[in-house]
Amino acid sequence: MKYGIVLFPSKRIQDFANSYRKRYDSHYALIPPHITLKYPFEADEGQLKEMTKELRRIAAETEPIPVKVTKFSSFYPTSNIIYLKVEPNDVLERLHQHLHSGLFAGKPEFVFVPHITIGRDLPGAEYADVYSQLKLQNVHFEETIDRFHLLYQLENGSWTVYETFVVGGKETV
Amino acid sequence: MKYGIVLFPSKRIQDFANSYRKRYDSHYALIPPHITLKYPFEADEGQLKEMTKELRRIAAETEPIPVKVTKFSSFYPTSNIIYLKVEPNDVLERLHQHLHSGLFAGKPEFVFVPHITIGRDLPGAEYADVYSQLKLQNVHFEETIDRFHLLYQLENGSWTVYETFVVGGKETV
Repeated sequence: MKYGIVLFPSKRIQDFANSYRKRYDSHYALIPPHITLKYPFEADEGQLKEMTKELRRIAAETEPIPVKVTKFSSFYPTSNIIYLKVEPNDVLERLHQHLHSGLFAGKPEFVFVPHITIGRDLPGAEYADVYSQLKLQNVHFEETIDRFHLLYQLENGSWTVYETFVVGGKETV
Repeated sequence: MKYGIVLFPSKRIQDFANSYRKRYDSHYALIPPHITLKYPFEADEGQLKEMTKELRRIAAETEPIPVKVTKFSSFYPTSNIIYLKVEPNDVLERLHQHLHSGLFAGKPEFVFVPHITIGRDLPGAEYADVYSQLKLQNVHFEETIDRFHLLYQLENGSWTVYETFVVGGKETV
């Protein structure tokens, strides 16, 4: 089974992102707007118990996560992905590291550039046109996120949440 | 904000349901296949902490939930919804009651008929044609679900998971 780990920003950021994703993101219907912490990885269902235990441990050691969205940006020329830039910070960086060491060891596929994708798979000309407009826009959101989620992928490519992990040990009653 | 409470069945049931939902369910892209425990309700974000605390308490008192899917059925003539029938059982019934009493008081909109919707909003003739085929099919899934989820709705009608509640008090480390 394929798993992934993400943050969901607040509803207001998700609604803002979706207003663009609807037109520009081929994954619009597959998953809500998110910040990827760990890209899709294969794991056996038998490992789930151990994985969730470890994720609870990591969550308990993680502080509330500052999320500051500052502009539209793009991975061009690596890819045509357009995204909302999330400013890096120590909490995000450490959480990303924890999700790529120990039980979750494995070199990340990419350098960690926290972001919320809002466009992908656009033909070159459309990409250039859309991005040239968006990059001029002012964007500013600031919030604190207190949870992350382990998801699994269905056959149609969509993602279902398996479990939520509240940071700072608040997951206990 | 609008909230809802659902069970997600296993990936194999979700994949099976999606193979029909893709063609017949207008909500296909809005939420993964699910069993609704509490229909959409309005709540203030300020009530979230109290709600999640109460949901953890309810989860701790709930046993693992048997889910037995036995056939295709329909709410016709009340509505054109086609669904996978989930056999009622005491655990599901009690959980449903807990989610409609105390903090969550409020008469359920419908009698609780546990189900996984796979078709809706079909024109009359198509509904009759599709349902006449499906109701002849043999369906049999049996499993145990150990969690439920609190979701909230975005402006585009889609649902994001806010938190997972593992039953039987297993949510503590």
